Amino acid sequence: MATLSEAQLIEYLTQFEAQPRIPPLWLGPGDDAAWMTVPQGQRLVLSIDTLIENVHFTPQITPAALGHRSLAVSLSDLAAMGADPVSVLLAITFPGAPESEWVAEFAKGFFRLARRYEVVLLGGNIARGVLSLTTSVQGIVPAPKALRRDRVVPGDLLYVTGTLGASGYAVQCMQRRAQLPDVIRNRWWMPEPRVLEGLRLRGLASAGMDLSD
Amino acid sequence: MATLSEAQLIEYLTQFEAQPRIPPLWLGPGDDAAWMTVPQGQRLVLSIDTLIENVHFTPQITPAALGHRSLAVSLSDLAAMGADPVSVLLAITFPGAPESEWVAEFAKGFFRLARRYEVVLLGGNIARGVLSLTTSVQGIVPAPKALRRDRVVPGDLLYVTGTLGASGYAVQCMQRRAQLPDVIRNRWWMPEPRVLEGLRLRGLASAGMDLSD
Repeated sequence: MATLSEAQLIEYLTQFEAQPRIPPLWLGPGDDAAWMTVPQGQRLVLSIDTLIENVHFTPQITPAALGHRSLAVSLSDLAAMGADPVSVLLAITFPGAPESEWVAEFAKGFFRLARRYEVVLLGGNIARGVLSLTTSVQGIVPAPKALRRDRVVPGDLLYVTGTLGASGYAVQCMQRRAQLPDVIRNRWWMPEPRVLEGLRLRGLASAGMDLSD
Repeated sequence: MATLSEAQLIEYLTQFEAQPRIPPLWLGPGDDAAWMTVPQGQRLVLSIDTLIENVHFTPQITPAALGHRSLAVSLSDLAAMGADPVSVLLAITFPGAPESEWVAEFAKGFFRLARRYEVVLLGGNIARGVLSLTTSVQGIVPAPKALRRDRVVPGDLLYVTGTLGASGYAVQCMQRRAQLPDVIRNRWWMPEPRVLEGLRLRGLASAGMDLSD
């Protein structure tokens, strides 16, 4: 199978046709750093998360699911703050030259999710090492509407989006080598960040927190 | 030697006394994400860089030098854009529970550099794996004054800050098992990001680029 050089990998990811357009006045990949603008009155919300092979995922995961998940884990942090995600930097560590087919599938999963929330890839880094993916995401939220963990007080009602326990069950199945139902595996591999729920909860919830990791 | 749990490590790094104060209205470590404000008329400049043991550094490096270098490599990218660095997220991967002495030295090197440029640690991530450090930095620059690589034109004069070749010479010495002069080793281990030079070159240079990696 064909493998990609670092330059080819960067070109493939940055030229991937199905990704959101970088807004005018923003600077995307290709320079030493990227830049963006933050609308007046908005706070810039920042989070970073790392996935490592054989720690956070097993080699069985599909490249598309891994692409999805590497972005989802960080978007989930922004969602917990009620932030609207806008951009991401992606630092990838590969054990060797990646196969072009792997990269194509990874990009599909990553950008399908990125497009859903209009998150633009502004830059990144590529290095040699154990397969791992670090996403550093940026979001915006009107200053008074951000959700914080530490605003919760005794007596507050507690709500959870979705249902809990699928990922834990998936890990148990793996450890016992039991069969993994598709619906459970998909919940584990491709968690859905609660971005829309976070946006809706602005001004309604008194606090918020990400439970997905 | 005493080792630190993940919670203790986070507490140690975030409570480290010799670090710049987080500005009012900003949210530092402790929630799902951090937030900051970007002054009107300024662009937010973003970069990410990863250092991995036995790829970008050898086990001989001191923890203090590694702390310095993990921040310096990303600040160097901001400097190349003429940006003023303001904050950083740090994603660390450790093979096991880190020794408290190692962490103390790492923090000294990291925050000595952070303090010099008033860069605040806003958050991060900790995971198990081969020792590696990813820094995601944020800087600001007045929109028209940012330096870009692609603004260079034939006939431009070319300037370099400092002297070139120390890191390359250091790597050659290592490979030949030759003795490494202290001055060379320090240049390799603890590169000085050209932040002040980048700021001074705003409006003077037509383009800029980081040569340090």
